[in-house]
Amino acid sequence: MRVYNFAAGPSTLPECVLEKAQKEFLDFAGTGMSVTEISHRDKAYESVVKGAEALTRELLGVPDDYAVIFVQGGASTQFAAVPLNLMHGGKADYIVTGNFAKKAWQEGKLYGEAVKIGDSSDKVYTYIPDVDKLDYTDGADYVHITSNNTIFGSRYSKLPKCKAPLVADMSSEIFSREINVSDFGVIYAGAQKNLAPAGVTIVIAKRSLIQEPLAICPTMLRWKVQDENGSLYNTPPAFSIYMAKLVLENLKEKGGVKAIQQVNEYKAKLLYDFIDNSKLYKNNILPEFRSIMNVPFVTGSEELDAKFVAEAKKAGLVSLKGHRLVGGMRASIYNAMPVDGVKALIEFMKKFETENK
Amino acid sequence: MRVYNFAAGPSTLPECVLEKAQKEFLDFAGTGMSVTEISHRDKAYESVVKGAEALTRELLGVPDDYAVIFVQGGASTQFAAVPLNLMHGGKADYIVTGNFAKKAWQEGKLYGEAVKIGDSSDKVYTYIPDVDKLDYTDGADYVHITSNNTIFGSRYSKLPKCKAPLVADMSSEIFSREINVSDFGVIYAGAQKNLAPAGVTIVIAKRSLIQEPLAICPTMLRWKVQDENGSLYNTPPAFSIYMAKLVLENLKEKGGVKAIQQVNEYKAKLLYDFIDNSKLYKNNILPEFRSIMNVPFVTGSEELDAKFVAEAKKAGLVSLKGHRLVGGMRASIYNAMPVDGVKALIEFMKKFETENK
Repeated sequence: MRVYNFAAGPSTLPECVLEKAQKEFLDFAGTGMSVTEISHRDKAYESVVKGAEALTRELLGVPDDYAVIFVQGGASTQFAAVPLNLMHGGKADYIVTGNFAKKAWQEGKLYGEAVKIGDSSDKVYTYIPDVDKLDYTDGADYVHITSNNTIFGSRYSKLPKCKAPLVADMSSEIFSREINVSDFGVIYAGAQKNLAPAGVTIVIAKRSLIQEPLAICPTMLRWKVQDENGSLYNTPPAFSIYMAKLVLENLKEKGGVKAIQQVNEYKAKLLYDFIDNSKLYKNNILPEFRSIMNVPFVTGSEELDAKFVAEAKKAGLVSLKGHRLVGGMRASIYNAMPVDGVKALIEFMKKFETENK
Repeated sequence: MRVYNFAAGPSTLPECVLEKAQKEFLDFAGTGMSVTEISHRDKAYESVVKGAEALTRELLGVPDDYAVIFVQGGASTQFAAVPLNLMHGGKADYIVTGNFAKKAWQEGKLYGEAVKIGDSSDKVYTYIPDVDKLDYTDGADYVHITSNNTIFGSRYSKLPKCKAPLVADMSSEIFSREINVSDFGVIYAGAQKNLAPAGVTIVIAKRSLIQEPLAICPTMLRWKVQDENGSLYNTPPAFSIYMAKLVLENLKEKGGVKAIQQVNEYKAKLLYDFIDNSKLYKNNILPEFRSIMNVPFVTGSEELDAKFVAEAKKAGLVSLKGHRLVGGMRASIYNAMPVDGVKALIEFMKKFETENK
């Protein structure tokens, strides 16, 4: 029986997409081959990469002067690729609002002066610093943010207005709410939350910014090279890109990003309202900065938290354990989580609260 | 109808493996989730990574003091990872026996003195230089070879005996013939030939060699970091590793590397004998260095080559077009290509020769 999977990534995918992939798993597009076997130079496969790119451009409204590429290694590899492609002047600003933001900043320090201009660790990353009051570095090559913090469950409610290009790790929220791509120099995201199975990372970059990577940048991390080769410089993660295309087709059928944003906001409101009105559960993020993708909550008792996670699993609500840095529970309610999944979670939470008064 | 797929990679996979993956695609190990959805921290998934590692160790006889890790980015990313992990003294030797060997050498030059000590481009890479007569550089950090050349269809018949650790790109032949892992400092291979769908790369490295990557090495390219985290430093390419485990289980059932080597040698002999005895087809590699994985051949007429490829496709023998650097045809006959596939190819070649005298 299919469960409701609240994992932070890899995470739930649309059931109809999984069914389609299963159905054609041994015979992709009538080729007599699995999509896992076909050459990436085959016309039938090239249309997958081109299709995934075209859907990304359409659904996010990516301007023509931006590259859209599919690469490997996860957002963690992009933590290095960002400075290696952009840090010409040797310094960049970082706003540290969570675990991955911190890792990106630390990686930046390998390649130059990575200046931490904001940091919300003083209150366990429960808020986002006021971006209008930060001291941006003159001549910085870029300003790096993590737009949604998977582990702590916060997100930016407004963007930094800075002279330097804004670079955003959007791994845990890309395609979940409308954005204006022109506000950013570079957007990158590991796919395994809203886009596809793990193994592919999307990078959207203004072409004028990426023409001269640092000399020490590995060829495979050069966005320009990947762009010039249409994401086929070497063998791509073919299956993950294929799945991304199916997911994006499904998102388009559902009405696109604007429509899914409404659903996401509805799901998040249901859950936050319930938490705020309950006596047992608590979410610590300042309401303005609450993520609509990742919703951590605690009971205040580690023992009760553990019991919650175990009993929820028995009830078919899985992967609700919070990250070890936060403890408690976390419900990741990405695009593919049905409203019914959130409702089932709330019903379970009610029942658990009653039983554990 | 299932075709015989002679693609160089991504390439054919065992049909029974595909069927198993298809069957459990929506419900992995009774979890109620697809293996593409499950958290990489879930116990059910951790056993996949550990299982793939254990099977690799068993099937290749990997000594305990070697790391076995699964990473992303293909062999092309390892072209940079090799110097970034090993080039402490600032110089290394490269033997250039094909296109990817050349790319590895060029990437090495980004990070130090990459000395080309052998080069078979004078005869279009149709042979391997005599490794006993090369002028190895004193104090080199390593000697890099590409053990099997996918595009040109050659392979080493003996290994360099050098003081420096031997580093081998085995992408297109790993698990196809017996090796002694202790002969190497590092072995790496993109999975999409003999191991799994594209998206995962295996690295086998002597631990004593990989303790201090260069300071500029991206964290994700540090083999030590990946080893210490059991390939789970960040989200791994979960589906490709899952498929690798299934393929390795299948290989073990078939009798392991020794048994598949016999089959591979038999398949290759069938095809080379036929080519050598035909009047139409020609393979240009010196017999001693002929690959048992990739078999290029030409008719001598570009027009006839194109006709061959087109008609073969109609007959269910696909992806036989040679690489653009070589032209003609190429039959990649990896572990998963059945003997019947090679026989069907030979029958087609006979018929085509008769019809095109």
